[in-house]
Amino acid sequence: MSGGKPLTYAGAGVDIEAGNEAVRRIKALVETTRRPEQLDGLGGFAGLMGLPAGLREPVLVSCTDGVGTKLLVAIALDRHDSVGIDLVAMNVNDLLCTGAQPLFLLDYIATGRLEPGKIEQLVAGVVAGCRQAGCALLGGETAELPGMYADGHYDLAATAVGVVERDEIWGPHRAEAGDAVLALPSSGLHSNGYSLARKALLSPEHGGLDLGDPLPGAGPDDPRSVGDALLEPTRIYEPAFAALRALDGAPVHAAAHITGGGLIENPPRALRDELAMEIDLSAVAQPAVLRAVAACGVARDELLRTFNCGIGMLLLVDPARADDALAACDAAGQPATPVGRVVPRSPGAAGVHINGLD
Amino acid sequence: MSGGKPLTYAGAGVDIEAGNEAVRRIKALVETTRRPEQLDGLGGFAGLMGLPAGLREPVLVSCTDGVGTKLLVAIALDRHDSVGIDLVAMNVNDLLCTGAQPLFLLDYIATGRLEPGKIEQLVAGVVAGCRQAGCALLGGETAELPGMYADGHYDLAATAVGVVERDEIWGPHRAEAGDAVLALPSSGLHSNGYSLARKALLSPEHGGLDLGDPLPGAGPDDPRSVGDALLEPTRIYEPAFAALRALDGAPVHAAAHITGGGLIENPPRALRDELAMEIDLSAVAQPAVLRAVAACGVARDELLRTFNCGIGMLLLVDPARADDALAACDAAGQPATPVGRVVPRSPGAAGVHINGLD
Repeated sequence: MSGGKPLTYAGAGVDIEAGNEAVRRIKALVETTRRPEQLDGLGGFAGLMGLPAGLREPVLVSCTDGVGTKLLVAIALDRHDSVGIDLVAMNVNDLLCTGAQPLFLLDYIATGRLEPGKIEQLVAGVVAGCRQAGCALLGGETAELPGMYADGHYDLAATAVGVVERDEIWGPHRAEAGDAVLALPSSGLHSNGYSLARKALLSPEHGGLDLGDPLPGAGPDDPRSVGDALLEPTRIYEPAFAALRALDGAPVHAAAHITGGGLIENPPRALRDELAMEIDLSAVAQPAVLRAVAACGVARDELLRTFNCGIGMLLLVDPARADDALAACDAAGQPATPVGRVVPRSPGAAGVHINGLD
Repeated sequence: MSGGKPLTYAGAGVDIEAGNEAVRRIKALVETTRRPEQLDGLGGFAGLMGLPAGLREPVLVSCTDGVGTKLLVAIALDRHDSVGIDLVAMNVNDLLCTGAQPLFLLDYIATGRLEPGKIEQLVAGVVAGCRQAGCALLGGETAELPGMYADGHYDLAATAVGVVERDEIWGPHRAEAGDAVLALPSSGLHSNGYSLARKALLSPEHGGLDLGDPLPGAGPDDPRSVGDALLEPTRIYEPAFAALRALDGAPVHAAAHITGGGLIENPPRALRDELAMEIDLSAVAQPAVLRAVAACGVARDELLRTFNCGIGMLLLVDPARADDALAACDAAGQPATPVGRVVPRSPGAAGVHINGLD
């Protein structure tokens, strides 16, 4: 039954040597994310991590997410060293909303044909993100899947795990009417809404731009291309959150990562049903790339429901301690801005009211 | 700049309502995997899980993996309810090798166009796998990524997290010359080597079979099609491992999941460099599908390096307690077979020696 050439795994499109070469390239990089709780030499099938000392009743916190079609921008530009930061950010920023400290992350890279240099770039981004987030890159999988991805395409996913003291968990159970709402600014579109943003900016019947064109409306102080602006890495808020977790008296009650679903769907995720958030965007700078997307004909409601509109993270804080929280964020190099407050919610009313985005 | 139709996320290929419908369908399924340590109602951004009571010095164990091109068989047959079991198995079987008990899993499903019925089938498989593994499906991401996957294609990845007492970790540090090697049989090809198996069986220049053809050499007691045999779910070994972890005196020293790299690369992962494994396959039944692949012209070395060759898991056990371990596996409904022993390794020699596969 067999043909002339012996059938091998390599002949079926799986290049084990390319896989081994990729592993060699990333090993030293990954080593720089090590945490002291990590255990080694205990077997090659899984990553092992002890818990930070001194926890009374640790609760594990875990999230999984990908980067979405932002990857298509990286692929089009053949620049793969920053989407790993996005990957870490999308996971860690979710995890931070519980008050947890990030411990470790595992990544999954899948592609049709394994190119070690590209894998190295991708992992370099993941490593940079893990260092910003203070978490170890504890493991991962690089899968070569002939026939499943278009030429040169890949997908990324990751899972982050953190830990929080059981009686210090942040969330809707702590949010109160009267809480101050502080915003940590986003760095751009982060990693949400790229199917819409790409269509608005790039499709001939809308923006008609190329990735290499100057970003419209960016001003002489920001001479970036459309592609640069779209690839801007998602901000990772661990520095601010580490400072906030360290404040005496637990003044932060809850947080909302402004991820998929934008400013409409995410704020209510930090609230019980009887509460709502009032947010005034007039003090929030809108990223130039968002203004460019809006100018291509995306309506206000769709902007609010799809994009972060300048806010990467909302913090719900004891109003008497808002200044302490602002000072902590400042000291961490990630300044926040007061943008609103938590109010009682009438039955049937929305969980968020937004003003100040024209 | 904008065209006639207002630009929306839905118009850009992302169907939020289909996403919400998929979430509704899977919610009740996921609920059946609940563990008592799980925490709820503490915010929508992450999954929360306490630790099992009574652990003195818990170590977290984590793995990430996908299903690989076995998915292309599921897609070709339009049967999506079992690859979720494979997904759990590929992760949990790695995790089990450390002696850890599985706690939770998070899944990532990515597709070009979200079909709620297909997502429900996929998650039903993940849930079935999690129930076999005793772990909670704590979270997940279903990503609709227009332009990244071919029509009808999807990818799956997952991360499993478990916990083990620090001084009870299994691994190379415990393996000893003289240890008995026991094998837990595989259910088929599991989820490795599918690029080669598909090429061998299905390509016109080799096997030339269709997925609907009877599996050659399967015999009248196994009237399965090629597609049925290729889709056979990966066995999840938690029942046997739970029984083995419960044995007094920790007779199991290490385990090797026979995953990518087959019987050549995986046994040494359970050993220090100065040890090797001798394995005799003559008592191990070769799955009919593997015999069919071999008959298409895949050489013995390539079989051993790519496929599990009938063995899903190897256990390295104190030889004085091998009968106890065999009895524990029997009682758990997953009988094991003695296949070899651990021996000293000469410098430069291979970490595994295999006899009995013709």
